[in-house]
Amino acid sequence: MHAGKSLTVTAVAVFSLLALAVAQATTPEEPAAAYQGTGSAVDPASAQTVRSPGAPDLSEVEFEQAKNIYFQRCAGCHGVLRKGATGKPLTPDITQSRGQAYLEALITYGSPAGMPNWGTSNALTKDEISLMAKYIQHTPPVPPEWGMEETLKSWKLLVKPEDRPTKQMNSLDLGNLFSVTLRDDGKIALIDGASKKILKVIETGYAVHISRVSASGRYLLVIGRDARIDMIDLWTKEPTKVAEIKVGIEARSVETSKFEGYEDKYTIAGSYWPPQFTIMDGETLEPKRIVSTRGMTVDTQQYHPEPRVAAIIASHEWPEFIVNVKETGKVLLVNYEDINNLTITSINAAPFLHDGGWDSSHRYFMTAANNSNKIAVIDSKERKLTALVEVGKTPHPGRGANFIHPKFGPVWATSHLGDAGVSLIGTDPKNHPQYAWKQVDTLEGQGGGSLFLKTHPKSNHLYVDTPLSPDSKLSQSVAVFNLDDLDAGYKVLPIAEWAGIEEGAQRVVQPEYNEAGNEVWFSVWNAQDEQSAIVVVDDKTLKLKTVIKDKRLITPTGKFNLHNTQYDIY
Amino acid sequence: MHAGKSLTVTAVAVFSLLALAVAQATTPEEPAAAYQGTGSAVDPASAQTVRSPGAPDLSEVEFEQAKNIYFQRCAGCHGVLRKGATGKPLTPDITQSRGQAYLEALITYGSPAGMPNWGTSNALTKDEISLMAKYIQHTPPVPPEWGMEETLKSWKLLVKPEDRPTKQMNSLDLGNLFSVTLRDDGKIALIDGASKKILKVIETGYAVHISRVSASGRYLLVIGRDARIDMIDLWTKEPTKVAEIKVGIEARSVETSKFEGYEDKYTIAGSYWPPQFTIMDGETLEPKRIVSTRGMTVDTQQYHPEPRVAAIIASHEWPEFIVNVKETGKVLLVNYEDINNLTITSINAAPFLHDGGWDSSHRYFMTAANNSNKIAVIDSKERKLTALVEVGKTPHPGRGANFIHPKFGPVWATSHLGDAGVSLIGTDPKNHPQYAWKQVDTLEGQGGGSLFLKTHPKSNHLYVDTPLSPDSKLSQSVAVFNLDDLDAGYKVLPIAEWAGIEEGAQRVVQPEYNEAGNEVWFSVWNAQDEQSAIVVVDDKTLKLKTVIKDKRLITPTGKFNLHNTQYDIY
Repeated sequence: MHAGKSLTVTAVAVFSLLALAVAQATTPEEPAAAYQGTGSAVDPASAQTVRSPGAPDLSEVEFEQAKNIYFQRCAGCHGVLRKGATGKPLTPDITQSRGQAYLEALITYGSPAGMPNWGTSNALTKDEISLMAKYIQHTPPVPPEWGMEETLKSWKLLVKPEDRPTKQMNSLDLGNLFSVTLRDDGKIALIDGASKKILKVIETGYAVHISRVSASGRYLLVIGRDARIDMIDLWTKEPTKVAEIKVGIEARSVETSKFEGYEDKYTIAGSYWPPQFTIMDGETLEPKRIVSTRGMTVDTQQYHPEPRVAAIIASHEWPEFIVNVKETGKVLLVNYEDINNLTITSINAAPFLHDGGWDSSHRYFMTAANNSNKIAVIDSKERKLTALVEVGKTPHPGRGANFIHPKFGPVWATSHLGDAGVSLIGTDPKNHPQYAWKQVDTLEGQGGGSLFLKTHPKSNHLYVDTPLSPDSKLSQSVAVFNLDDLDAGYKVLPIAEWAGIEEGAQRVVQPEYNEAGNEVWFSVWNAQDEQSAIVVVDDKTLKLKTVIKDKRLITPTGKFNLHNTQYDIY
Repeated sequence: MHAGKSLTVTAVAVFSLLALAVAQATTPEEPAAAYQGTGSAVDPASAQTVRSPGAPDLSEVEFEQAKNIYFQRCAGCHGVLRKGATGKPLTPDITQSRGQAYLEALITYGSPAGMPNWGTSNALTKDEISLMAKYIQHTPPVPPEWGMEETLKSWKLLVKPEDRPTKQMNSLDLGNLFSVTLRDDGKIALIDGASKKILKVIETGYAVHISRVSASGRYLLVIGRDARIDMIDLWTKEPTKVAEIKVGIEARSVETSKFEGYEDKYTIAGSYWPPQFTIMDGETLEPKRIVSTRGMTVDTQQYHPEPRVAAIIASHEWPEFIVNVKETGKVLLVNYEDINNLTITSINAAPFLHDGGWDSSHRYFMTAANNSNKIAVIDSKERKLTALVEVGKTPHPGRGANFIHPKFGPVWATSHLGDAGVSLIGTDPKNHPQYAWKQVDTLEGQGGGSLFLKTHPKSNHLYVDTPLSPDSKLSQSVAVFNLDDLDAGYKVLPIAEWAGIEEGAQRVVQPEYNEAGNEVWFSVWNAQDEQSAIVVVDDKTLKLKTVIKDKRLITPTGKFNLHNTQYDIY
């Protein structure tokens, strides 16, 4: 039986949660600064006015303000160029035909299709909403490129490989360490799994999206939404940042080479803007190759200017990275044997590829094409698309959850953003061929708005969060299924209540097992100026074990147990 | 000994010759129409004024007129987005700092670096020059994309494969047929090599850039500068167009699959705009896959929005097309075994890849990176860059010329646009390793402005044209070297004089051997309303054999002997 570890806080997660849970706008300097001077169409005849045909004029100051809000709140779902992805397209032809009043109402109240209620949640003021309604009727400004020059400039080799220890110089139980994203604080916390103490807080990029562990287990890699990667050596006396780089303006994914003979050799990061990926030296993060993903969509074969790089996973079967390109719906097999003469195989999947993870055999990459309501199955051995499986509305697996179903054999599960279902897909073509690559069952969870589900090979439970549910009862609790008795339905664990925090939205997000697979950690996520917590549950008894509270624990979201992350146990 | 056949009328050729030789502007409807409505920044406050910061205002009508002239005259060298290639970059930051007067002077008088003298050659009026100087200070309008929808709409299957004959139904000597580009007339002429009679004139795209023959020799494929491909069946009672398609707005290259088992299976075409290539069914031209080439440059790894596809050649060693991407300087090995899951290897060469051809063994692709003054050698068997060879200024080989040098063994030769030299590169790593992939010698030709040189395995002559020389003595004649006595220098053949035409620039362009390799054909190229001719020279005696004149022979440029083209004999 398999289950367990993962996390990919997605565009939807980032933006919706930002909207719903965080009332205070956070405006990190870096992405905003990177957006300066990107050539908006300023009319020289009225130097302070920005004009687009058919759109209400804006002053330059207003335009810049709106541009920053758009980057913070809207770009993740709608795309920098507003071509649409998880959110709808917002190009001027569309927005202008809707008109100012309609746009203001939609931004204020949101929509059942998933548009957050920016006004009624107090995330944006009335003036800001009016401004944004005007702004999106303008031609989208194109942010600057980020090529090798910019990437190299951002690169800091803080400790050279030759100055690093050759063995672990501390007594930390690395396998049971947790790397916890402190989202709005731009940091991660390293928490010891046994003592539950914060060992160290490390400055990182803004809103760290994921933590990954190199093949050897020595290096921890975290990537911020601002495309900053920090590489932490876990063998030094205390975990130490040894390299840092910025691979673009917006990013989500980082991964390291895992094929035999290439352990820790290369690191790859995928960017949202510019739409590209960067291959770096695995010991230093020195940037080697940048590859653009701009190209044709899989279905209509029309050019897309912003095909963002979503999940990346390292193949164990070939010296390859498997790279999801969201908008074009292509899965790239990027061979790293000769990075100067890169060979890339482009597999046609389905549009809006997002996150995913291995099946229990680590041969098949199960990846959501979320706005297509499909899971694409990529055979990393045969290097081809095995199946496109229809599932529920907007699957959002994180890396998914693997377990053995009494009837269907090994299955991989995903929850959904758009409905209460949990889809089970058979993953055993050898012994259960009749169920392989089919949605064999759907469990009924608490509701839509789920981001992550999790189990572990040593657990017989499956946890499903619902942090994006508009119902606080759901967003503050998790559902847990007994894998030995799925027909019994789920129990509800009142995680936020157990945290004992008085105020705030207290969204419960992302179950994460410890190394032993006998306890599960949940984030109770509040705004930056409110108290948050991590609640640890005993997996056997489903009872509260510990609440981790610490004034440094600001906006905790993703938590990555290093052992489970390193070995893809989920 | 090898020598002979080829031709790639390049951007430089097209534009410079257009400037120098053709006084009357030709304005084909199609490319101009395709440029309509591409979202120039029209200020709504003054509906007829186009405004870019820092540029002189233009009326919408003027802007459209300039846009069309730019496409006709400038885009080939400077690029649609004006990032520069064979010509210099013309982005507003650069052009505005030069100022109106400087720009007008440069356009009027040209420059020694290769900018044509549009004014003093009477190709553009004073008003047009003033307009163009203003226009290039504006932000370049981005032409529309051309995806599968547009491509499919343009596709015409005129005769289905099942309605075509199964054997040759005519008595034509196909191997000695010549496909002759009638550039400004938008046609090709099929001329019988023995009788020198025009067998048929066929409507094609504008300014057909090359003719290619399918692996079987049955199909003739021509591609116009307007990206229109016409496919002609040579087995029907008389050669008949069986399919037609448009793969973009501007294009240069077409090729068909030649690997064993894939003969006539796929056709590929490379486009200048949009920057992409299209893989089609080899029997019908049905478009299958479009692949964008937008991406990072080879040297600085900065994003380039317009990496145009230059020469394409089909590998005999692998089921691959070898695709030159000009601006990024990458050679793509496009494997066509599974076109739905394309595998592409990107070989780093040098910026501004242009044209090229095989060495005599057909294993090594010798390709000019012309503004880098280099020849890149691609080993099609080992699938890697073998060498970058420094040569003279702006090499322009067409497909080059192969012969056996008494000292250096097999060599491949290229002439230059930028100087009088003819570079010889050793191509025999087995028996002459000390000379392999080195510029072993430079012959001194008549002068710069050469586009093509040619020899043939059965000939002991090497012909070098100089159609772009500003000296009419040179542009109206060719130099011929005796391969058995290279030290003797060249003889001059007064080709234009032999044509006996009274008027016009009479530029002599592109030597082309017949199948037997005992005669050489030259175009004497005049303007559309003037008489042109083809002069046929006896290769043994270097004496005039025949002059082909015909009122249908309007602006002949490239001539493709079908046998030599099919078997890559040059």
